[in-house]
Amino acid sequence: MIYHDTIVALATPSGAGAIAVIRISGFDALKIASIVFQSVSGKDISKQKSHTLHLGHIVDDAKVLDQVLLSIFKGTNSYTGENTIEISCHGSSYIQQQIIQLLLRKGCRMAQPGEFTLRSFLNGKMDLSQAEAVADLISSDNEATHQIAMQQMRGGFSNEISKLREELLNFASLIELELDFAEEDVEFADRRAFKELLNRIEFVLKRLIDSFAVGNVIKNGIPVAIVGEPNVGKSTLLNALLNEERAIVSEIAGTTRDTIEDELVIGGIGFRFIDTAGIRETKDVIESIGIKKTFEKIEQAQVVLFLMDSYALSVVSLETVKVEIEKIKNQFPLKPLIIVVNKIDKISEKQVEIIKEQLKTHNSKLITISAKENIGVDDLKNTLLSFVNTGALRNNETIITNTRHYDSLLKALEEIQKVKYGMQTNLSSDLMAIDIKQALYYFGEITGQVTNDELLGNIFANFCIGK
Amino acid sequence: MIYHDTIVALATPSGAGAIAVIRISGFDALKIASIVFQSVSGKDISKQKSHTLHLGHIVDDAKVLDQVLLSIFKGTNSYTGENTIEISCHGSSYIQQQIIQLLLRKGCRMAQPGEFTLRSFLNGKMDLSQAEAVADLISSDNEATHQIAMQQMRGGFSNEISKLREELLNFASLIELELDFAEEDVEFADRRAFKELLNRIEFVLKRLIDSFAVGNVIKNGIPVAIVGEPNVGKSTLLNALLNEERAIVSEIAGTTRDTIEDELVIGGIGFRFIDTAGIRETKDVIESIGIKKTFEKIEQAQVVLFLMDSYALSVVSLETVKVEIEKIKNQFPLKPLIIVVNKIDKISEKQVEIIKEQLKTHNSKLITISAKENIGVDDLKNTLLSFVNTGALRNNETIITNTRHYDSLLKALEEIQKVKYGMQTNLSSDLMAIDIKQALYYFGEITGQVTNDELLGNIFANFCIGK
Repeated sequence: MIYHDTIVALATPSGAGAIAVIRISGFDALKIASIVFQSVSGKDISKQKSHTLHLGHIVDDAKVLDQVLLSIFKGTNSYTGENTIEISCHGSSYIQQQIIQLLLRKGCRMAQPGEFTLRSFLNGKMDLSQAEAVADLISSDNEATHQIAMQQMRGGFSNEISKLREELLNFASLIELELDFAEEDVEFADRRAFKELLNRIEFVLKRLIDSFAVGNVIKNGIPVAIVGEPNVGKSTLLNALLNEERAIVSEIAGTTRDTIEDELVIGGIGFRFIDTAGIRETKDVIESIGIKKTFEKIEQAQVVLFLMDSYALSVVSLETVKVEIEKIKNQFPLKPLIIVVNKIDKISEKQVEIIKEQLKTHNSKLITISAKENIGVDDLKNTLLSFVNTGALRNNETIITNTRHYDSLLKALEEIQKVKYGMQTNLSSDLMAIDIKQALYYFGEITGQVTNDELLGNIFANFCIGK
Repeated sequence: MIYHDTIVALATPSGAGAIAVIRISGFDALKIASIVFQSVSGKDISKQKSHTLHLGHIVDDAKVLDQVLLSIFKGTNSYTGENTIEISCHGSSYIQQQIIQLLLRKGCRMAQPGEFTLRSFLNGKMDLSQAEAVADLISSDNEATHQIAMQQMRGGFSNEISKLREELLNFASLIELELDFAEEDVEFADRRAFKELLNRIEFVLKRLIDSFAVGNVIKNGIPVAIVGEPNVGKSTLLNALLNEERAIVSEIAGTTRDTIEDELVIGGIGFRFIDTAGIRETKDVIESIGIKKTFEKIEQAQVVLFLMDSYALSVVSLETVKVEIEKIKNQFPLKPLIIVVNKIDKISEKQVEIIKEQLKTHNSKLITISAKENIGVDDLKNTLLSFVNTGALRNNETIITNTRHYDSLLKALEEIQKVKYGMQTNLSSDLMAIDIKQALYYFGEITGQVTNDELLGNIFANFCIGK
């Protein structure tokens, strides 16, 4: 599995910037670099220490391509665990291309997506779940996803799994040993301690599996359906939540397009706001296509935000609104519903009280706001956050965000439960050993102790080039 | 002019990538970095050597923001000539922002565009024309612009100017000395040698000023107007020149939009192809708006490429085409014209010969091609290149691309010519000294020995942030 060729890729985002970094890793990294690099001080870079920086020029025969800074990382002290060179050049796309092409001519080959991290894994610098966390870390765009990825990259999750795996492995060896002495009917493995371990593993696995529900929404953003008629102030509300003018806000009803999906970060958590056309019935078409679409969108959401314009109540009766709310609650009895009464800056306090009185129900939350005047918006933010189980996040507990891990944990749990049942039913040690081995296999899948080319291919194909 | 505060900026392009580099420069760079950075090895980074790399974590109080590599550049050995720290972090925008915000809280301030290079200039690490070349280098997108910027950044141009300035300065001192001994009527400055120097300076200045014509077009791309009716194969030709499918090629006449401007690099030189609507007169409107627009575009171009469809000659007579060509030549007698006869794969060789015979004129170039079959395209490329004076480029001569330098050189030349005239007319030394000083001033403007805040502001405002 260990590669001996030398790979190269641009490590910084493409496009023009002040500087760009080109990364070379592999057996010949130093050799190839010393062909193309001329140190200003005249030093032979192949003789320089690891973790040193050198000013010089990238030279293609007599032609100077750029003045650069070259970083040297030797052997196991690099990210990949191989000799690595980083060239920090001027950030023109032309220069980047020229230098990479020169390196390719001198013996490098273009790195595959994620190949630097793959090598890091293969060289034992990190386990598989840590490698996966690198990709998550790079794509993290808010505090929650960042924190989870960071914890996983630093080994929080693998440590937990590895420790349990080791304890289980101990028992497995003892039970295997019993099999060798089968005729003597001895018990090397303390059955009580083993049962205790199985319970502990089951508990941890269940907790991790449960955490996927929150981990998954945190990773993908929590979908919130905004149900409201045109002109109730959807765009203004999104802007108020975002605290800046992003969407186009207009007084003309229906300016918001049908399929807008806005991603906002509130309190470090990503929310995806799914705009809907509302569910007000028209006289023309009783169950209109619009309403059907709105229901489909509510189906996908975790939270429903029913937005109404309190100022428009002279046009629409409160009864109409009540009917709409009832319809949503009947259709989605278990979905959290927030009734947001907007534009309260335009009506009297007494009117606000009447609306509150009329619309409050035992299983929904009612919030009065003025998106335009930024009244009650923080209250709404807190309510949205209350639907996310941030306890685990705050307590820095391990949260699973990766479907692959989730699958392996589910399978491992199943095997552990089989072993437990086997013990209860006095299953023979040799049969129990098979289930234990299978559980160990699934543990190993997570951290990468058990792996195959196809799995690795799938994982690293999702990385960006240069990482 | 020397700043004592510490600046920070993202040095790599914004957006997600494998890694990003954040640059800190200034008096407190090391101090601030050691607050936020915890080395894996536990080392105190403020005690580490210049040009060393350190693995560790960026920590905001107890919270780990990222695992990073930190580069240390001390004092005059850095790009800016000040203590500089580069943080190579994971390339998520969220992490970049978090780290920069943390550094701002710890005492950095956001760098202005080009402020790192400005500091480099102010700290005497490079002169002004070299600093300007840094921006040119970053925006260079082809071999020619890259070569010119590289040469200028490495001091080719400034050396030439500085040497002349120094020689002139010598004479200026001698002449000043004469003024001190004015009553004794001595001549310290050898008039013959001085005349020889003035001639030499005049020669160099004229060459540099002349080079601006080619430098300017190389920097901005050589504008080529393509004149041709719809469906003569403009997009196909551009693709053939580009060697890949970039523009949308369609058989439907007029699919190319009116204002397409395609930038192609041919033989290392950038060309801007300006598409026009052609100049065929319609019966409806004699001098149509389209023709007027086409003429306006030809006006802006350096070369005119008249493209015709040889296969369509059954529809349009050769006479019509001749009239069109004549019209262009009458309107723009001095503009180089290339007549490109396209689609020759669809007609017989004999027909090609007839067209050649009919359309050739003494002051235009005729090329027969099939853009689709890639026949004659190289011939066209070479013809286009022949309009660029690449001799200076090939000979690695200094080429001026900067309008500011051009202006200063023109003014310096004017002063030198005044001095020469003064010598011919036996102008008194004190008056001549004024002209010499003025010439020295303009020389100094180029390299930055003479400067002011407004000038520096204008120059560095065009830089990108982080450089």
